[in-house]
Amino acid sequence: MVYDKQNIFAKILRGEIPCDKIYEDEYALAFRDINPQAPVHVLVIPKGSYIDINDFSAKASDVEIAGYTRAVGQVAGKLGIVDQGFRTLANNGPDAHQEVPHYHTHILAGRRLGQIIKSFRE
Amino acid sequence: MVYDKQNIFAKILRGEIPCDKIYEDEYALAFRDINPQAPVHVLVIPKGSYIDINDFSAKASDVEIAGYTRAVGQVAGKLGIVDQGFRTLANNGPDAHQEVPHYHTHILAGRRLGQIIKSFRE
Repeated sequence: MVYDKQNIFAKILRGEIPCDKIYEDEYALAFRDINPQAPVHVLVIPKGSYIDINDFSAKASDVEIAGYTRAVGQVAGKLGIVDQGFRTLANNGPDAHQEVPHYHTHILAGRRLGQIIKSFRE
Repeated sequence: MVYDKQNIFAKILRGEIPCDKIYEDEYALAFRDINPQAPVHVLVIPKGSYIDINDFSAKASDVEIAGYTRAVGQVAGKLGIVDQGFRTLANNGPDAHQEVPHYHTHILAGRRLGQIIKSFRE
């Protein structure tokens, strides 16, 4: 599978489409999901062109992977959700209904998270 | 919060409790969840003593973080779920109902994943 440079997250990274930015560094960009599934719903994407976690883990450097993972921690700190807790989640490929073919991690937090997890378990 | 050396994953890492092992390397151990929530349900844990993604991303080295992330890709390859797709998910802290205080990523795959995702979205 070839990375699609016209996917919406690639356009956001190029500044062609705006986003509600939460955090940015050399390795990652984080912004609010436009269709939130929880009171706090932020997406963290790597700056490199990776389709999913398979692509990312196979091709990204140690420094890129560490930088991206640390960005998730930075975002949680910035959102003030470290103590209450949060879920991180990534959909990879067709069975997981991945909607944008640029690797992304969802950060989900808030009062409804317990119910979301309950329904997930059913 | 101090890492609890008596948590069940620490015991599995020390070999005090058995597990249905899928993959192991210098940085990570992967084994089947004893209470699967999907046809394929595997947990990937770092070998270091980290409570959650905040602790992991703040304290682990670049090499440890990259090795752990790459292990997730290796596990997906070994399980034969790269093409069909899978979800990766980590619960961090109380609101996310984290059950074992050792950082772990769930890998979920299979026919039911669509339904699980649907109920997650409701």
